Amino acid sequence: MTIAIVGGTGPEGSGLALRWARAGETVIIGSRDAKRAAEAAEKLLQEGGRTAGVSDRHVSGAENIAACRSADIVVLTVPFEVHAEMLKHLKPALRPGQILVDATVPLAASVGGRATRTLGVWQGSAAQQAAELVPDGVAVVAAFHNTSAHVLLGDGPVDCDVIVCSDDKDAAKRVRALARKIPGVRALDGGKLENARIVEQITALLIGFNIRHKGHGGVRITGLPSEAYDV
Amino acid sequence: MTIAIVGGTGPEGSGLALRWARAGETVIIGSRDAKRAAEAAEKLLQEGGRTAGVSDRHVSGAENIAACRSADIVVLTVPFEVHAEMLKHLKPALRPGQILVDATVPLAASVGGRATRTLGVWQGSAAQQAAELVPDGVAVVAAFHNTSAHVLLGDGPVDCDVIVCSDDKDAAKRVRALARKIPGVRALDGGKLENARIVEQITALLIGFNIRHKGHGGVRITGLPSEAYDV
Repeated sequence: MTIAIVGGTGPEGSGLALRWARAGETVIIGSRDAKRAAEAAEKLLQEGGRTAGVSDRHVSGAENIAACRSADIVVLTVPFEVHAEMLKHLKPALRPGQILVDATVPLAASVGGRATRTLGVWQGSAAQQAAELVPDGVAVVAAFHNTSAHVLLGDGPVDCDVIVCSDDKDAAKRVRALARKIPGVRALDGGKLENARIVEQITALLIGFNIRHKGHGGVRITGLPSEAYDV
Repeated sequence: MTIAIVGGTGPEGSGLALRWARAGETVIIGSRDAKRAAEAAEKLLQEGGRTAGVSDRHVSGAENIAACRSADIVVLTVPFEVHAEMLKHLKPALRPGQILVDATVPLAASVGGRATRTLGVWQGSAAQQAAELVPDGVAVVAAFHNTSAHVLLGDGPVDCDVIVCSDDKDAAKRVRALARKIPGVRALDGGKLENARIVEQITALLIGFNIRHKGHGGVRITGLPSEAYDV
């Protein structure tokens, strides 16, 4: 299984790439610029080299389109201001059977507003906008909105649950399994893709906590039976 | 300090009343019907009698208007379909210096939709609607949306953080202190009242988890320095 991370040179994308590389997954860091992508992959190899499981067989960089063509799972971690444009750019490279994981949060910062506020997206959420823009047969799964890039880029376990929303149950299950490869993460079935509108907004709330308390906030869901975190 | 709970005969209101009564607070359960309020207070005294701190000096029932007139803090735990109407009804009984704590979630169930979906509220959130409807000088604080009624009505600690949002910093601080009287609860500064639009929606997400997994979901915010939970 190959994972392409579009926006993989940014902090959230790099953090996810690092964690999956450490777990032995094959990761392609995507960027508009193939040279920047290769540099980011090189940097990740050096940093990931601190732990086992990372080799240059597993991590590479490529222009976004090339990265998508080689991938089974495409993870989108781009600022919301380029979300729709990027999906239109990627469309020819996406094919039925692929999974598009969308971690995008429609922060008001995208239009010069605050990172503690969100924009209203016509479709309801960034993930639902993505669902409108991918080719038929590509499963859109919303996940990884609430995991702190700073924490992902560190060495410790990630004290955060990943809430996974999708209309494709099989794709959601695969993404939950991928989330669980990150130490500390518990993955939860967040229901249909439309619920991404809530999960995306939680990030704006966490950014507020981070600003007020100089932290790296995450979220845990309590009070559910243990199987909720296992299936 | 006297706490009136409007909608105090419902599960969320009863649960909060029980917890504060156990903590030795003076609680008035409000209802449209004074007789029902008195019965709920009696029931709470019997249940609360299992633990120390509850006496009939501390717990009583009253019609909502009378309950509000006697209170320093008014907690609103009503279904969203009666939220605006109730606030208009209470307006003559509210006075400057009081705190109105709003725990209302604008679930789509209010208009025959699903409890896993929310309604768009013109002002942004139920709490902001409340702020428009209270007399000048009444501080509106949004809190207690995410605490499970089932868990509150039990005996164990409540495994949930209370995110408190308000434009009145002093009132918010008092409500955080009140939240911390519930065993297990950590209270957090959620910033301005407008952020209630996110905190309210989290409840719809938790209801989805509860339906899928037969749980009583709550939320914890991780990754913040310890003082975030203390001030």
